[in-house]
Amino acid sequence: MPTIDLNCDMGEGFGAWAMGDDRAMLDIVTSANIACGFHAGDPSIMAETARLAREKGVRVGAHPGFNDILGFGRRNIQGDSPAVIERMVAYQIGALQACAALSGHRVTHVKPHGALYNMAALDADMAQAIARAVKAVDPALLFVVPPLSAMDKAGEALGLRVVREAFADRSYEDDGTLTPRKIAGSVIHVPELAAERVVRMVLDGAVTSRHGKRLPISADTICVHGDTPTAVAMAAAVRAALEAAGVTVRAVE
Amino acid sequence: MPTIDLNCDMGEGFGAWAMGDDRAMLDIVTSANIACGFHAGDPSIMAETARLAREKGVRVGAHPGFNDILGFGRRNIQGDSPAVIERMVAYQIGALQACAALSGHRVTHVKPHGALYNMAALDADMAQAIARAVKAVDPALLFVVPPLSAMDKAGEALGLRVVREAFADRSYEDDGTLTPRKIAGSVIHVPELAAERVVRMVLDGAVTSRHGKRLPISADTICVHGDTPTAVAMAAAVRAALEAAGVTVRAVE
Amino acid sequence: MPTIDLNCDMGEGFGAWAMGDDRAMLDIVTSANIACGFHAGDPSIMAETARLAREKGVRVGAHPGFNDILGFGRRNIQGDSPAVIERMVAYQIGALQACAALSGHRVTHVKPHGALYNMAALDADMAQAIARAVKAVDPALLFVVPPLSAMDKAGEALGLRVVREAFADRSYEDDGTLTPRKIAGSVIHVPELAAERVVRMVLDGAVTSRHGKRLPISADTICVHGDTPTAVAMAAAVRAALEAAGVTVRAVE
Amino acid sequence: MPTIDLNCDMGEGFGAWAMGDDRAMLDIVTSANIACGFHAGDPSIMAETARLAREKGVRVGAHPGFNDILGFGRRNIQGDSPAVIERMVAYQIGALQACAALSGHRVTHVKPHGALYNMAALDADMAQAIARAVKAVDPALLFVVPPLSAMDKAGEALGLRVVREAFADRSYEDDGTLTPRKIAGSVIHVPELAAERVVRMVLDGAVTSRHGKRLPISADTICVHGDTPTAVAMAAAVRAALEAAGVTVRAVE
Repeated sequence: MPTIDLNCDMGEGFGAWAMGDDRAMLDIVTSANIACGFHAGDPSIMAETARLAREKGVRVGAHPGFNDILGFGRRNIQGDSPAVIERMVAYQIGALQACAALSGHRVTHVKPHGALYNMAALDADMAQAIARAVKAVDPALLFVVPPLSAMDKAGEALGLRVVREAFADRSYEDDGTLTPRKIAGSVIHVPELAAERVVRMVLDGAVTSRHGKRLPISADTICVHGDTPTAVAMAAAVRAALEAAGVTVRAVE
Repeated sequence: MPTIDLNCDMGEGFGAWAMGDDRAMLDIVTSANIACGFHAGDPSIMAETARLAREKGVRVGAHPGFNDILGFGRRNIQGDSPAVIERMVAYQIGALQACAALSGHRVTHVKPHGALYNMAALDADMAQAIARAVKAVDPALLFVVPPLSAMDKAGEALGLRVVREAFADRSYEDDGTLTPRKIAGSVIHVPELAAERVVRMVLDGAVTSRHGKRLPISADTICVHGDTPTAVAMAAAVRAALEAAGVTVRAVE
Repeated sequence: MPTIDLNCDMGEGFGAWAMGDDRAMLDIVTSANIACGFHAGDPSIMAETARLAREKGVRVGAHPGFNDILGFGRRNIQGDSPAVIERMVAYQIGALQACAALSGHRVTHVKPHGALYNMAALDADMAQAIARAVKAVDPALLFVVPPLSAMDKAGEALGLRVVREAFADRSYEDDGTLTPRKIAGSVIHVPELAAERVVRMVLDGAVTSRHGKRLPISADTICVHGDTPTAVAMAAAVRAALEAAGVTVRAVE
Repeated sequence: MPTIDLNCDMGEGFGAWAMGDDRAMLDIVTSANIACGFHAGDPSIMAETARLAREKGVRVGAHPGFNDILGFGRRNIQGDSPAVIERMVAYQIGALQACAALSGHRVTHVKPHGALYNMAALDADMAQAIARAVKAVDPALLFVVPPLSAMDKAGEALGLRVVREAFADRSYEDDGTLTPRKIAGSVIHVPELAAERVVRMVLDGAVTSRHGKRLPISADTICVHGDTPTAVAMAAAVRAALEAAGVTVRAVE
């Protein structure tokens, strides 16, 4: 029977500010990527999100980003050496491990956030720095990456357990990359459409590009976003469609 | 043979800014309390300080403070619930654990910093929150506290291994508290004088108060400061005097 | 004809995070207190809020707070000298002046935020430091303060134009102070009730305390909050009731 | 008689951390560029540096940077719209204006810092955004820029008073750009050598490139750095050599 993991970025509030409906998303997804205080999140939000995830039986992972609260980790920051990147990622994983420990939960994966994810997908030095951090902190951690990216290669090279992810609500180009957000149609807003695409990804191992090309895609986890107005409806539709198609939704073991 | 630990706060630079001569201090002390990014320190400084400590055979501990970079963690911040304090401390310990793991070092103690240390010495709720964080992250961690303080009691109550500290360069009042810094003579600047006092603390279990009263003091570790112009000379004099008096300087096992 | 100003704290988002419905509140109030980046707000939010206020003919003022983004400026921070407080307040006023200048608007008042407001209401040194900052930056700035507070006195002593404020949605104690938030009934949630109280404050110069005592109150401006679910309804009810009672709602000249 | 301005970046400490010997540099230079809290500096340091500059008769300017304390404003940050850049720069200028007002000093120029300076030298949109901010806050402010850069053009186009700067201690390439810091010899460490080059720039309007080419250079101000071990000696040598050559060192009027 086919299986798939559903992951969502969470704990993206900060201090007095909230973002997303984590409680509702935790009833749908099987893996939660928790912001670690550098682009969003703070110790209380991290601990509370991990506690809630544990209560609902959802795996938690670190979602490290650039130290860029004001830019939500979405600005490309250039100039940090690989060693600095490595330490910055290690710091955030460790911080979440401790916050999760407060409720007896355990961090089982790492997925970089935003600009760090996008830059490290292309930059081998940065990707290797992140992979080294993951390995040093806990070599059993799953490393969630875009398929075929520099992070994928870096994880494999270091012997990490690599988990490849696809996106439920994003359009793809003919070369397999995500359609840039500035292009109309890059983000899919209709839950049923996204759900149908995800089912095809899982059952057929393929997705149709923006220009109609069939792209093979091998995903272990599907990212559903939590910070849009239709996030919960979208995620629920994706999960329902998967289950209706006979796919078991569960975390990667 | 009497033994004593010497501890020093370290890694208190931030980004482009340096503070103290950690390399020199690491040749003298046996325990390094590393700032964790909230009042000083950043992932790179933390990882580098831990690496250097490992190279020199010095134990490392987390030195968590209030999230107060601009105030160096020395401002009393009121309004955080015990739960918030607990998570804030856990976060910092975990962050250092991961940064230390990058060089194969291991965090073995926790000593709160500045205003957090001073407030928690008196406030049972805050002290218990810190002790809970220490226990949740790693119950084997040593908890470094002022003797007889609320932190001392909280650590004992939770079954933590409590390490009591005295100060090499601070004057004491008749009631055993530190002389407030605004009073003249509160800080001892003459290395020989501080060294002699430390020897007496260790061999006689007592220190003379500012007004000449003999105070019993039971210290497992002596704090030498690292951020003053005479820090290295002071620490070296303390260590030399201890060894000359037949005291073994080594970390608490 | 009696007149009154209505003021509201605004621009309290931060980076990717929003707070309150400033656009709706700007259709109701006559003075907007804009957060200045220390407890909330960032340059873009400040500039945009000022631009919107100008478009709607609403006066803007600086709403300086402690440098405490994580605590939203609501934590008491102790340890800053009056000189530090003075510079911290000046910095924030100047920053808003420049952000307002981008749309041709002009800062005409200053009202401290949260813990800074509460502490300076009682602490003469802190109050004088704030008043000095206001005067140095622009002696024509209105200084919004709690009546009879240390800030009221400090503003008067320095020759500032002092504007006294009362709260639409807060209960008062017999001594004229606000009922602490932890006491049930300290915050009034029923718009009609708040509106009626405000009308009485303006027309009778009095408010009834929590225990039924009639308190004389002389307010130049009424603060309506913008960050609660019922904020817009509350503010609209207050304004409608004032106008129905023949009160002119307009900014202090 | 030829004249030249000497400028230096200052106020680059942060909280408990110091950087450079501002007091000594203020005896040598005629214009001080003061960090505004985004990459370095805080309200107290800004106010104190401005006060000291006033006491010594030195002009002060805002030295705005990216909001990047941890990276000292030296990391390229990509993703901010021109509008965001404009507001970020306005904010910092205004903040310094107010801090300077505390001692009766006045901000008379603006010079972007680090990565913002380097990026805006090449990026017309960013350069125009900065120029718009300067003009909106105070159209009389001098705009300090690299000659022939996008900032130079943007300042001219908006009618700002543009001040062109050259560097005392940097090597130039044949095309007039600075030799990148990673190339050996990019920074001149011998005070006499730097001093001689500066005299030639001012008297001959030319500098010799790293490969021996004579480059015409028209500088209104010379930047001497304040954060290196030899900073004071270098700056003093430059000033002495200029005066010995009959050049009047004074701020641009």
